[in-house]
Amino acid sequence: MAHCHSPETKMPIEQALDDLQAFLGERLSRSKPDLDAHAGSESYFPPIAPDAVAYPENTAEVSRIAQICHAQGVPMVGFGAGTSLEAQTQALRGGVCVDFTRMNRVTGIRPADMDVTVQPGVTREALNEELRATGLFFPVDPGANASIGGMAMTRASGTTTVRYGTMRDNVLALEAVLADGTVIRTGTRARKSSAGYDLTALLVGSEGTLALVTELTLRLHGIPESISAGICAFPDMTSAVTAVMETIQMGLPLARIEFACAATARAFNAYAGTDMAEQPHLMVEFHGSPEATAQDAERFAEIVADHDASPFRWSAKTEERNALWAMRHNGYYAILASRPGARAVVTDICVPISELARAVEETQADIAASNIAGPILGHVGDGNFHAILLLDPEKPSDLDEAKGISARMAERALRLGGTCTGEHGVGVGKKPFMEAEHGAAWGVMGTLKAALDPTGILNPGKLVPDT
Amino acid sequence: MAHCHSPETKMPIEQALDDLQAFLGERLSRSKPDLDAHAGSESYFPPIAPDAVAYPENTAEVSRIAQICHAQGVPMVGFGAGTSLEAQTQALRGGVCVDFTRMNRVTGIRPADMDVTVQPGVTREALNEELRATGLFFPVDPGANASIGGMAMTRASGTTTVRYGTMRDNVLALEAVLADGTVIRTGTRARKSSAGYDLTALLVGSEGTLALVTELTLRLHGIPESISAGICAFPDMTSAVTAVMETIQMGLPLARIEFACAATARAFNAYAGTDMAEQPHLMVEFHGSPEATAQDAERFAEIVADHDASPFRWSAKTEERNALWAMRHNGYYAILASRPGARAVVTDICVPISELARAVEETQADIAASNIAGPILGHVGDGNFHAILLLDPEKPSDLDEAKGISARMAERALRLGGTCTGEHGVGVGKKPFMEAEHGAAWGVMGTLKAALDPTGILNPGKLVPDT
Repeated sequence: MAHCHSPETKMPIEQALDDLQAFLGERLSRSKPDLDAHAGSESYFPPIAPDAVAYPENTAEVSRIAQICHAQGVPMVGFGAGTSLEAQTQALRGGVCVDFTRMNRVTGIRPADMDVTVQPGVTREALNEELRATGLFFPVDPGANASIGGMAMTRASGTTTVRYGTMRDNVLALEAVLADGTVIRTGTRARKSSAGYDLTALLVGSEGTLALVTELTLRLHGIPESISAGICAFPDMTSAVTAVMETIQMGLPLARIEFACAATARAFNAYAGTDMAEQPHLMVEFHGSPEATAQDAERFAEIVADHDASPFRWSAKTEERNALWAMRHNGYYAILASRPGARAVVTDICVPISELARAVEETQADIAASNIAGPILGHVGDGNFHAILLLDPEKPSDLDEAKGISARMAERALRLGGTCTGEHGVGVGKKPFMEAEHGAAWGVMGTLKAALDPTGILNPGKLVPDT
Repeated sequence: MAHCHSPETKMPIEQALDDLQAFLGERLSRSKPDLDAHAGSESYFPPIAPDAVAYPENTAEVSRIAQICHAQGVPMVGFGAGTSLEAQTQALRGGVCVDFTRMNRVTGIRPADMDVTVQPGVTREALNEELRATGLFFPVDPGANASIGGMAMTRASGTTTVRYGTMRDNVLALEAVLADGTVIRTGTRARKSSAGYDLTALLVGSEGTLALVTELTLRLHGIPESISAGICAFPDMTSAVTAVMETIQMGLPLARIEFACAATARAFNAYAGTDMAEQPHLMVEFHGSPEATAQDAERFAEIVADHDASPFRWSAKTEERNALWAMRHNGYYAILASRPGARAVVTDICVPISELARAVEETQADIAASNIAGPILGHVGDGNFHAILLLDPEKPSDLDEAKGISARMAERALRLGGTCTGEHGVGVGKKPFMEAEHGAAWGVMGTLKAALDPTGILNPGKLVPDT
């Protein structure tokens, strides 16, 4: 250490940790396993651990934690279920990880208004379990059993977005703690409002860089009376995408519409012993009354027949539907299992639907020209897709190759009028593309961040330009 | 004038107007009729005129106007069709009104992606006229033939919001000019994104206080194959609202669901010679396939029958449907005509749906106890309603009484978990309720405003706390 400190003069981080320890007792952890468990995310980024992990139990405690960190200029990084894919929770500049595991309650269910208030640490599956008796559900489904707070902070979405929207569309109101500990409330339980800046929308997707969210009020939806679902294969991506565009333009109320490439079908056959055609597939779901979902499925069958698809096999029976979705839900694991010992880099771009076939085909050609494999899965109704790039962890060149493919995907998305991340967020992985995507607007993001967090203690080093 | 100026030292406003005149020529107007026409809005607020009106024709001109105004610290107030209801365009501190009438082109229609790019001055009706051949439409309908830019700036909505959302949900991307003339782009044509702060959502609803919007990319929707619509009467508001809540919970895809109170029915009978029951009414519309819209209407008929409604009369024929909606669309004029010579104060609150019957009934009781009339219309699917408070322009006490009723409505909305404005915006009229609605978050709005517009030239005096 270059500077000397007298015994009386503590480093700011030491002072903050002492103050936090006095306040939280055992709920401030500095154990090595705990720090390691909060050092990164489900991704290929190197772990960077915080100096301590705080486990608050209520908003007042989060506020007090922020006051202590603010007084010493110590960073705070929020943490939910640790399922983010772009290293959003890496403690780039150390500091305190604020883990919301103990703030995991559903605090108010209002079936008449079809809304619910939750603490940020509740997971998607736990929330839907608690809602079961009401006939309502929370539809945003990113695959992982993420925390609702984390999903809001990355503006998560998933397979049901084409019908029910993203977190942007399903968060009505927030309670949040600012950098200095001030507690604010944004939005109300009214379904809409024109009362000033939409701070709720500003915080959703802010990845913990503007505030720590301590409570969320969410829209709920009725569990559909009936669900029909089916699958079919196409000769190529272009026919599949064209069929989807026609379906959307006809106003057929798709609840899910997912595609999987030929390599994904092959991986799933090997994984589950099925005999799917090794072609691009579409998997589709309709929600509604029994009559409506049957009609929707039949009309979809007619559309895809015009685009050289295999016969659209569909069912409204739960068991058959579950079997059908197994490929999509296990797709990631089937792909991983196709290369024993492999690790994956999961990419994520979103383009206008008219550019989707081109984006997928160019990506496939790029992957084919490389030394690694990368089956593709995606949310075709949104124009969002993922290549699961498979790496040999012993071969550093594989990671370089994957990073190159991912970077070219992001550049391709921007060239085609899209975005470098549809649903995984910026974190560390997509920050290099923010300037190209946003231009001067990225500077505006930095201005907003500096205004709300002038000392830069909220998840520093992420999302906005470095100062 | 208290201060002396040498002939060489111009006032900043004079310098700005000289510079603008040199740049815009005849497209900078200082004529009295033009200033008067830009002094306010469709509302009861006193007119406050700008010093000049600028008519830019493209983004570069808006940017140059901003640079000139910024250099002299002169206010800028954006102006679309002048249909705002809360005096959003009053030039509270003078300056330059930026009128977007000449920026009214539809610059790109992309049917395959179901999106469109427009300049801010295009009106809702002109846009839908241009879209007609595509089979697509832009659904947000605030009633007035507002400009799209103005609708975005007030986060407008209307009768179709229950199905298609507000401007928040239908603006994909923006181009905007900041206070200093910097041009930014927010969002992309991708349907969703997790790439950083949602600046699009921050600008939508900002009422020209953060930037001047120069281009908008909007989501479009397919013109429904079939539309069914119908009407029925209820013994009281509670039964009507309960029927609506049941309908929504059952997942029936309402495209519009509007209510009108007994006094509105009475006014319409007098206006149009109809013989509607003088009771609360619901008017409903379903969009979809012919089979689906018929089934939806039949199911709705069953629901309302359980709530003591009159038989639900519905039709899928265009003529009958248009006749049916005449009451809703002409409701405002029918109500105005019920008091010849009267002016109206149009109120606007939004509450959780479970509180809607109570909010309406308390409002009706408050109006009944006053000396003025105030029929009620609303968007029951959103919990949003308006009392049309009728004033004798010769009686100043009527305006005081209307303001009192409007203030108590806003306070009632907040007490019931709602918002002081569902769709008309803050402007001048709702600013007194911002602190009560947002608490410390109102201060955050002020912080954001100060960060993006440090000299306070963008629509000064509106929306955020006075500094």
